[in-house]
This record gives sequence, structure tokens and C-alpha cells, in this order.
Amino acid sequence: MGPHPAVAAIRLAVRRVLHDVLNDHHRKQLDPAHEPAAPPLVLVACSGGADSMALASALAFEAPKLGVRAGGVTVDHNLQAGSGTRAAEVVTRMSSLGLAPVEAVSVTVGRAGGPEAAARDARYAALDGSAQRHGAVAVLLGHTRDDQAETVLLGLARGSGTRSLSGMAAVSGAAGRYRRPFLQLDRQTARKACMVQSLPVWDDPHNADPAYTRSRLRQEGLPALEKALGKGVVEALARTAQLSRDDADALDHWAADAGRSVRDETGRLECAKLYALPPAVRRRVLRGAVIEAGSPAGSLFARHIEEVDRLITGWRGQGAINLPGRVEARRQGGRLVIRQG
Amino acid sequence: MGPHPAVAAIRLAVRRVLHDVLNDHHRKQLDPAHEPAAPPLVLVACSGGADSMALASALAFEAPKLGVRAGGVTVDHNLQAGSGTRAAEVVTRMSSLGLAPVEAVSVTVGRAGGPEAAARDARYAALDGSAQRHGAVAVLLGHTRDDQAETVLLGLARGSGTRSLSGMAAVSGAAGRYRRPFLQLDRQTARKACMVQSLPVWDDPHNADPAYTRSRLRQEGLPALEKALGKGVVEALARTAQLSRDDADALDHWAADAGRSVRDETGRLECAKLYALPPAVRRRVLRGAVIEAGSPAGSLFARHIEEVDRLITGWRGQGAINLPGRVEARRQGGRLVIRQG
Repeated sequence: MGPHPAVAAIRLAVRRVLHDVLNDHHRKQLDPAHEPAAPPLVLVACSGGADSMALASALAFEAPKLGVRAGGVTVDHNLQAGSGTRAAEVVTRMSSLGLAPVEAVSVTVGRAGGPEAAARDARYAALDGSAQRHGAVAVLLGHTRDDQAETVLLGLARGSGTRSLSGMAAVSGAAGRYRRPFLQLDRQTARKACMVQSLPVWDDPHNADPAYTRSRLRQEGLPALEKALGKGVVEALARTAQLSRDDADALDHWAADAGRSVRDETGRLECAKLYALPPAVRRRVLRGAVIEAGSPAGSLFARHIEEVDRLITGWRGQGAINLPGRVEARRQGGRLVIRQG
Repeated sequence: MGPHPAVAAIRLAVRRVLHDVLNDHHRKQLDPAHEPAAPPLVLVACSGGADSMALASALAFEAPKLGVRAGGVTVDHNLQAGSGTRAAEVVTRMSSLGLAPVEAVSVTVGRAGGPEAAARDARYAALDGSAQRHGAVAVLLGHTRDDQAETVLLGLARGSGTRSLSGMAAVSGAAGRYRRPFLQLDRQTARKACMVQSLPVWDDPHNADPAYTRSRLRQEGLPALEKALGKGVVEALARTAQLSRDDADALDHWAADAGRSVRDETGRLECAKLYALPPAVRRRVLRGAVIEAGSPAGSLFARHIEEVDRLITGWRGQGAINLPGRVEARRQGGRLVIRQG
């Protein structure tokens, strides 16, 4: 008798990703700059919640069959009383799945960008550090299709276009370190897989705390949307993420090409050539040029770029446009001059 | 004392669109193929609801100042008892605003595509007919920013990518006949404008009928999303529509170019050239080629195109792919052959 379908599903998802990781790893080894290596190590980032415990169990099961070492890391955010004890408990649970090395990394969460962003930054810094210390070739993350759907809705609320709708990538980070095997898998399957394997799981109280946008979305927003639009919403949102990512990549690619071809021999942007580009490409070229001139990407909003764009599409002799980071854009003799003051 | 801010807002929105309509109209008159014309006629499509009554009132106010004749048309869908009486009442209300000509057009709603799509098809056919009979240069539609937000969410639920997120266009139809002056205006402003002008409005019971996806979205889905994500959601969705439309246009443009450049001298698609395209562009080229070969666009889903795409990106000698409309795609000697059987 085979494993329960939920267990089969999580293992298959992990197996596929391990194959990809091994392919990439072997390709790098053909590169003479890389030393011949010991069996590669893959880490799982595990909070002790159902998604990442399911992921840890599947990694522990699949890795040995593929000649991969499997370890685990849990991050103690130090945001709740008793978080250290809990991290130690997660380490024990990972060990008992057969993962080695396993470790807890304690971090201090700053305040930059709000509580969720600050916690995320601290977490990834810790995971990066752990991967480097142990020489891991990949770190698996337990994000599910439901997390992806929530991420797309959060991007939608920003209203900043296709890139912000593209959710989380299946592969991300330096050299493709981070992998998300469960991005096509629903949360329910991960929970079920823990249940039938009798894995103890820990429910993060943050997940139900209405102070957090994501948990409000999870508890109320997404269920209401499903009620209105039907059960396929989570899947549709996840598909939107993939399609949006591909579209945004293609447009960035085009804008990078165009950013070179719209310049004169001295490297200045020619307004007539910019005018001839489709608006979506032109705005990306302008955004890139403004950032290159020193404007911080995070402070640069659509309205700034629209104003610069009007120097091209609605020219009526207007003066210099002031942009974040003391950058200014002006039109001068058919050229667009963007520079830091 | 000027008008109430809500009234000023609806009038400004209509004035801007009338300027655009006149500019387009005069440009056409410079074309010697067009006869010198009488004052141009602009129609408002009016259901008697608050949005279109506000639109009708603003058109009646602004048109004479710009030398434009303003008329109105209401469509009787014959879906509810007493709809004829109501249509006659709307005609009276339009007349009393000073609009002329005004008329009610009675239609029979079919069943193709579901009740909402069938009603929409019948409505636009009637509006097209009315515009032609009266020689109108434009038909104004009362869709607001809230309608736009709902349309984006409906597109999101389809999960079919950037184009389906682009909502309604400010200008659409043959020769840009349809214009939506209120696409940046919220529903509340239109209602307020009716109230302060003491315009009687009719609430369509369909708008609150939970049998309709759009009304479920309006009554429950969108408010829940606002509660989770904050008050700016409607605005963010409307902005997403505009950005998505520009992105989809640019990618369609690229795909049209690429669709020509990836062919050999006999016009067949070369697999190696297709392979070199970004996935988002390649999939659009493939979709276009499959539709050109006779596959009905409405029956062609992402999974079909993905299967065709694997002939390019995951070639392992697989056979012909069967597609809707008896179209098949096969790889043959480095070429992709797509034809109807």
C-alpha cells in the first residue's frame, strides 16, 4: 500500500525540486572553477507550522534516495515570550525526522518597512547565513499556493502593476538558493500530510492576528472573495502570479534593450525615440533611468514616472521635474536629461 | 456660487471626454472622404440608475457649450415585468434633462455565454444600432471606478493573465464609439450628484441579486477585501487595470512582430527561433498561430498553449497535439506545423 495521497503529493513536489537542484548543482560542477564536492546539502526552513513541517518530512524522506544530505534551520524571531523554547523544540522535531545538521538561529527584528517586512528581512538574513555556514546548495521554503494567492492580493492592493502581481518565485535568491516546492500545492494538503504522519505542528498565533494584513486576508478577505467568485479563486490567483511574472520579465527585458537603443551617440535619451515606444515599455525605461541617476526605487511611485513621461508625450515647455533622491529630469534640445543635483 | 463638488466632478469628466470626441471628430473631417458635417451628436446610454443618470445630466449640461448635440438611449432588456414602462419613464427623464433625440430600444436577450454576457451582447448591439441610426459620433457609458474594480476582480477569477486584468477601456468599440467618462470617478460621487440635482434614480434589483457574480462581488467580496487591505483597494484595482492594459498592449505588439520574424522563407514557424523568445511572448505567438489556424479563441485555454509550448521547450519526440476546432500542432524537422484537420 502506497502512502496517503497527501503524503505522496508533498513528496512528489519535493522530489521534483531536488532533481532541479541536483541538475543545477552538477552543471556548476562541470565548471572548472568549482571544486569537486561532497554530497550536496539541502536545508529546509522550518517554523514548526504545518506547511514547513510537511516540507521537512518530505525532504527527510526523499533526500537520501537521491544522494542528498538534508538538514534544517528554524529562525527564532524573539518576538514572543518563550520563542527560544519553541525554536529548540522545532530543532528536536527536525532531528527526529532524521535531518542533520539542524539548528536554531536567533535574530533581532528591526523596524524598517513595518513589522512584517522587518521580520522577513531578519529571517532571510539568518537563512542566508545558515546556508553559507553549512555550504548548503539550496534552502527549501514551505510557501503554499494559498500563500501565493495572498501575496498576489497584497500586490494587487499596492496597485503598482504586473510585477507586483507576480507573487513569489519558485526559485529565488542568490544563485537560485531559495526553492518553494509547495507553490502549486494547497495548504490543506500540507496539513493533511502532517496529520496522517502524526507530525506535531505549531499554529503561529500571528497567522490569526487581525493586526496583520496577511492574516486578515487569510481569515476574511480571501474566504469572502471565494464566496463571491467561486472555489477556483486561489488557483486563479496562483496562475495569475505565474503569468504576471513571465509578462513582467519579458517587458523588463524589452525595456533593457530599448534603454540602450533610445540613446544618442553621447548616451543621452532621445525624446523622439522614447515617444515611439509603447507606453508600458517607455515607462519602464524612464523608471530605470531615474533609478540609475540615483533615485531610490522604494520612493519612486507611478505618479513620478507619469510626470516624467509627460515631458515626452505632453511636452508644452514644462520645467524640470523633481524626483526622490534629489534627482531631476528635464527636457533639453530633444533630449531627456536626468541627473542628481 | 459654483455647483456642488460632485456635480462639478461629473461635469468635468464629461467635458474632458467631449473634448476628445470633438478632436477625433475634427481630425476625421480633415479627411476628404468625410462629408462636411452638422453639429456632431453624442448619445448617453442610460439605464435610469444613478451612474448613467448623473452622466446624462452632465452631458445635457456640457454639450451645448461645446456645440455638440446630446441625445440618449435606454435599452429595454425585457427580462423583468414592467421593463417597458420603466424604459418609457427613463426616456421621459432624459427628455426633461433636455436631451434629444431620445429613445428606448427593446431587445431580446439570448442565452449564449450565460445571462450576464447575453444581456451585455444584446445591449451593445442595440446601442450600436441606435448610434448608427442617429449618426452619433460617440456613445457615453456610465461605468465608474467601482465597476472597473469589479471587472478586474472578475478577470482575476479567470486567472488568464494580464489582458484579463485590464478591465474596461476608456475608449472602445468600432472607431472608438464607446467612451467611459466616469472610469476614474467613484460611484459615490455619481450618486451624490444625482441627489443634489434632485434627479430621480432607479435601483436595478439585479445589482443586489446574489445570483449574479458581479453583485455578490459588489455586496460582499469587495467590502471584505477593503476591510482586509484598506480603503484604497478600489483605486488600486482601477490603476491595475490601466497598467495591465498597457502591458498587454505592448506584449501583443511584440508578439505580432515576433510572429513574423520567427518564420522561415516559406512562412513556417521555426522552433529554434521560438525557443529564443521570452516565454510570455512565445506563448502569445503560439496562441495567435493556433487561432489563425482555426481554433476558436473562446475554447482555447492556457493548458492547450502550454502543451504546444512543450513541443518547443520540452521536446522529447511527442506526437501531434489536438486542439479545439480540429486544429493540430506538431513538430516536424525543426518547424512547428499548426493546421486544421
